[in-house]
Amino acid sequence: MTSKTLFNRMALIGVGLIGSSIARAAKLQGAVGSIVATARSPETRRRVAELGIADQVVESNAAAVEGADLVIVCIPVGACGPVAQEIGPYLAPGAIVSDVGSVKGSVVRDMSPHLPSNVHFVPAHPVAGTEYSGPDAGFAELFVNRWCILTPPEGTDPSATEKLAAFWSLLGANVETMSPEHHDLVLAVTSHLPHLIAYTIVGTADELQNVTRSEVLKFSAGGFRDFTRIAASDPTMWRDIFVANKDAVLEMLGRFNEDISALTRAIRNGDGNTLFEHFTRTRAIRRGIVQIGQDSPAPDFGRPHPGLPHTPLPKPYAADEG
Amino acid sequence: MTSKTLFNRMALIGVGLIGSSIARAAKLQGAVGSIVATARSPETRRRVAELGIADQVVESNAAAVEGADLVIVCIPVGACGPVAQEIGPYLAPGAIVSDVGSVKGSVVRDMSPHLPSNVHFVPAHPVAGTEYSGPDAGFAELFVNRWCILTPPEGTDPSATEKLAAFWSLLGANVETMSPEHHDLVLAVTSHLPHLIAYTIVGTADELQNVTRSEVLKFSAGGFRDFTRIAASDPTMWRDIFVANKDAVLEMLGRFNEDISALTRAIRNGDGNTLFEHFTRTRAIRRGIVQIGQDSPAPDFGRPHPGLPHTPLPKPYAADEG
Repeated sequence: MTSKTLFNRMALIGVGLIGSSIARAAKLQGAVGSIVATARSPETRRRVAELGIADQVVESNAAAVEGADLVIVCIPVGACGPVAQEIGPYLAPGAIVSDVGSVKGSVVRDMSPHLPSNVHFVPAHPVAGTEYSGPDAGFAELFVNRWCILTPPEGTDPSATEKLAAFWSLLGANVETMSPEHHDLVLAVTSHLPHLIAYTIVGTADELQNVTRSEVLKFSAGGFRDFTRIAASDPTMWRDIFVANKDAVLEMLGRFNEDISALTRAIRNGDGNTLFEHFTRTRAIRRGIVQIGQDSPAPDFGRPHPGLPHTPLPKPYAADEG
Repeated sequence: MTSKTLFNRMALIGVGLIGSSIARAAKLQGAVGSIVATARSPETRRRVAELGIADQVVESNAAAVEGADLVIVCIPVGACGPVAQEIGPYLAPGAIVSDVGSVKGSVVRDMSPHLPSNVHFVPAHPVAGTEYSGPDAGFAELFVNRWCILTPPEGTDPSATEKLAAFWSLLGANVETMSPEHHDLVLAVTSHLPHLIAYTIVGTADELQNVTRSEVLKFSAGGFRDFTRIAASDPTMWRDIFVANKDAVLEMLGRFNEDISALTRAIRNGDGNTLFEHFTRTRAIRRGIVQIGQDSPAPDFGRPHPGLPHTPLPKPYAADEG
């Protein structure tokens, strides 16, 4: 234990990309005294033990939460209700129970009824991730300079919310608090709609008769490949998100459809002015995101560019040329 | 001149991201004896001279092409016709005339009538770029491992096509030949539709009443920020592309709309199976793109992740802690 230690014992239920990143970051930062982890599949539990990112790996959710003063459920949102029901009776009095789900209204609705009144329920959503899944995909820096949104239900003890906020700050995140309803609307546009559109266009491109899959792959650097990254995200997680945040996603889809209809009409009419004005406006949004440090200013996301072929090698390597 | 020199004198008309990257790469590779460049705006001409990426900067298109055995027009596709008309009378007999436009049918239609029969017209499209524009944005490695598509009209001398292919190979590109019509269909799906969708969703997000722009920017790491990169591309270039490739873009938009309607219905009906199956299929496309080297396997496009706060610094830097 160090002076930074906020919790004696953290239980992680689910150790995928997010859970394993929390474990790594919390350990590095000395944020918790010890980490107990569990996962549904024996393979994941075995792998977590091999990786050494938890102090203890147990077989059941009930065993994981016993004696823990921080419990974080890191599983697809559709599974949160049943897991809350399972752990409810075993939670230590005064424990903080949290999650990392991308939808908050459904998580509050599904988990709250199963949690005893002597624990603090503070739902959370770290807005961070990659297109990879599983315990090997996590890394300690995942949350640095990303936002973590807390959505404590009305009546939550403010000191519990503050303690969880301190935990996420220690992991490098910026913390913001809002209502579950507002969270779900904001994330519908900044995350759920983009994923749905990416999943759609990647499917569209794969089903064409007059353009082959090989051509789609080869010429993907024209823009398409950017969409394939998020369309490679975990299918179970995303199925659950769209089912759980149906209303907000449908609302955003409706607005998107109106806007794409307007641009389609401009293309059909050869209305270059409308297109030019729209394309000029959207540049400003990118600049704003880069300015606040939520994306890199490096061209092309900083993707590596290999060197030119047969170019004379720089001094340090020239000897290798034989 | 080196043994690699393919052309004595290359004229570049337009020196933005693509033109300046060609200049840099051709010079580094010794692909051409000398480079003469011109641009419409005096600012760009001055900047190109300052950068030293051309051997000579001239004020008019006519002056640029005189005596050049390779002429590459690197301007928005909507301007290609008028420029062809301007340079036609000044082209050297036997010169190869090419371009870099993202639409090929319209370029062939607009340029061909103005080119004399004693030059070789070999339209080209290097499928490469970044979200930045202008002569400073270019770099010599831009085309390495990217595809360059040549669309020689029927009757083009095969040796001219081969010579231009050799030029692009020397710049690091893979070269493929196809008809202008097929090119425009392929690029409609791998580049034009993705850009249109990105431009749309970024506009949609910016016009919401119930979510602020500040929230959109802050929580953009949930997926939205990926779209803002290509929605920051040059507005003039993209206006011209959509006007020039209207038919193929409308065709692809129709298919995209059918597919998004099907997924919308699945969300509305809570049909998790349909969503899960779709999301599983699209993962394979990403893997294919990474396998053929058209994107990086690094998580999150290899975006940098800053270190954790207050973490002990590694040895080489520890002395700076003071």
